Amino acid sequence: MKRYLLAPGPTQVSPEVLLAMAQPILHHRAPEFQTLFKRVTEDIKWLYQTQNDVLILASTGTGGMDGSVSNFFSPGDHALVVNGGKFGERWTKICKAYGVIVEEIMVEWGHVVNPNQITAALQKDPSIKGVFVQASETSTGVAHPIREIGEIVKAYPGCLMVVDAVSALGVFDIQTDGWGIDIMVAGSQKALALPPGLSFVSISPKAWAQGEKAKNAKFYFNFKKEKDALATNQTAFTAPVSLIVGLDQSLKMMKEEGLANIFARSAKLALATREAMKAIGLKPYPKECPSDSVTAIEAPEGYDGEKIYKDLRVKYGITAAGGQDQLKGKVFRIANMGYIDTFDIIIAVAAVEMVLKGMGHPLKLGTGVGVAQEILLKK
Amino acid sequence: MKRYLLAPGPTQVSPEVLLAMAQPILHHRAPEFQTLFKRVTEDIKWLYQTQNDVLILASTGTGGMDGSVSNFFSPGDHALVVNGGKFGERWTKICKAYGVIVEEIMVEWGHVVNPNQITAALQKDPSIKGVFVQASETSTGVAHPIREIGEIVKAYPGCLMVVDAVSALGVFDIQTDGWGIDIMVAGSQKALALPPGLSFVSISPKAWAQGEKAKNAKFYFNFKKEKDALATNQTAFTAPVSLIVGLDQSLKMMKEEGLANIFARSAKLALATREAMKAIGLKPYPKECPSDSVTAIEAPEGYDGEKIYKDLRVKYGITAAGGQDQLKGKVFRIANMGYIDTFDIIIAVAAVEMVLKGMGHPLKLGTGVGVAQEILLKK
Repeated sequence: MKRYLLAPGPTQVSPEVLLAMAQPILHHRAPEFQTLFKRVTEDIKWLYQTQNDVLILASTGTGGMDGSVSNFFSPGDHALVVNGGKFGERWTKICKAYGVIVEEIMVEWGHVVNPNQITAALQKDPSIKGVFVQASETSTGVAHPIREIGEIVKAYPGCLMVVDAVSALGVFDIQTDGWGIDIMVAGSQKALALPPGLSFVSISPKAWAQGEKAKNAKFYFNFKKEKDALATNQTAFTAPVSLIVGLDQSLKMMKEEGLANIFARSAKLALATREAMKAIGLKPYPKECPSDSVTAIEAPEGYDGEKIYKDLRVKYGITAAGGQDQLKGKVFRIANMGYIDTFDIIIAVAAVEMVLKGMGHPLKLGTGVGVAQEILLKK
Repeated sequence: MKRYLLAPGPTQVSPEVLLAMAQPILHHRAPEFQTLFKRVTEDIKWLYQTQNDVLILASTGTGGMDGSVSNFFSPGDHALVVNGGKFGERWTKICKAYGVIVEEIMVEWGHVVNPNQITAALQKDPSIKGVFVQASETSTGVAHPIREIGEIVKAYPGCLMVVDAVSALGVFDIQTDGWGIDIMVAGSQKALALPPGLSFVSISPKAWAQGEKAKNAKFYFNFKKEKDALATNQTAFTAPVSLIVGLDQSLKMMKEEGLANIFARSAKLALATREAMKAIGLKPYPKECPSDSVTAIEAPEGYDGEKIYKDLRVKYGITAAGGQDQLKGKVFRIANMGYIDTFDIIIAVAAVEMVLKGMGHPLKLGTGVGVAQEILLKK
């Protein structure tokens, strides 16, 4: 069966990137690789919209999140975590693993945090040293108001703004420097459309300064050491050379498309997906601020979301994603980022229609597809 | 210029593996991937010669080393480290980063540790909870006596035998279970002939039991969590799917060749390299027990080792390795492991002869090549 990867990570990798990575291996200490690595470290700053250092680590995104806690916070420090999904919860778990005392803002799944809650929490506990949030909460498909939170945190010289942008970087506008983001984590397997295995972390001067006092033990994720290695266009330990060669190709393609075009494409694909689903009576799961990275759709009343997700795969070769934790069986999720384009969305909508029809749903085939086409036709 | 990778990691990756990794991405939670992951976790145990758990991590080898300390040792614990090169020194640095109190056996570079020193140190300090050593010290090209050390450590129920086999696994015989190795770390970019980005850690029941009491903070490298995920043929976080698809292909090829044949091949290639170098008046750097993974060669008196390494690259497109730290400028290093075979060694020897000739060395071209051929001809 022909196969289609439409999950929100790992996402599809383009033939250009697959072929780049299939080239003979470069040695990580050879001048040829260092020239490439220098270009890549500049290009990733372009994507991040930052002049801050951006580290490239041999790990998946969670490794970058781990180091973003261990390098900048100490046991007993206070942190504020926005927990509105599986990945918000992960910030809490990582902070606790490193002895950081967490105050959580529990956000109902499908909703975003109200920035006033951040203000109130920071006023209540001025000792808070970091605010942790997701730019796009992949589990629920919502985008938290990063710009507004950044403006609030900026006013606190002893508090860092820490953003998980794993499924947000390269999808919609996030101005690292403009919005005062001190630490931002991303990963290779989302909008960058690479295989999993790289994480990225941007670090502001304010964060580096706070890091000087951080007391958690670390070795592999020693960000100071990685920064020192960057000075000679290297990594501290062996670089994952193939993935970095792929990254070079991926960033080249993104630069050709341009940030504004990339953001507009993802926004259009996400809108088309949501509207098509509504046209056949399905509800997007987010109650507000849907993310353009991933569209989470509720299974219609009386239909099992897990079965929709499974039928997509088994009957039609389509790998979407099911729901995680409390959403298991209730939603399925489709990616709108990275190498995903117009006809991937047509495929996704057509397949969902066909799966539901097969489950006895009374929809008229082509209804959602038509709505998607209308939107995708527009400039 | 045509290029040849002959460095001791990253090593050459076969076209079969490059092509396997260039296939469309699998999703890490899809049943198809889980079937593959189950096979890979069984096959890696075959390579390790073990029934112990073997974790597959998204990091380079140093990440595996980091977790091998943080998961099993606590601040204040005593450890014994064999430090006879750059990677022995790394064990010390990692232990110290995690608050472990290190007693070092300083071994002169180019030599191996005498097992009696291990016995003496353990008798002197019975509170030692781990003995850390390299099976192959990549910086100097020697192989420490793992079997003998394993026999000694076995007698101490409160002490773990921890082996860095990053450049040893899949090169020469290391019997994880037979020799009592509690924790053994390997990486993808050496004998497994994959790009860098995976590390492997085998863990004995004795190590798991000691780990229960370990107090260092960790999250990404939480080995218990990875073990739990293995039960359903998954990784705790996103799996580096492409590298694991490559690993499947690499292990398939290694199983076809068979362990005994792989070990014999590396031994023959290493012998041919050493004898060829001697034939043109160059000395292998190891004073005893040369490793079959990598051959470190001393630059002849009056010749700069760094220039030999650079001329190999610039004049002939060959990436070998230079010397690290105190050996910088004094040695160059050639790999004998992984996808390296007969004619890679012929190329290496011929090129070294040509580079030296170009530097004014009086050798007779073909002398070393002839000696290598003699050895490589033998069964």
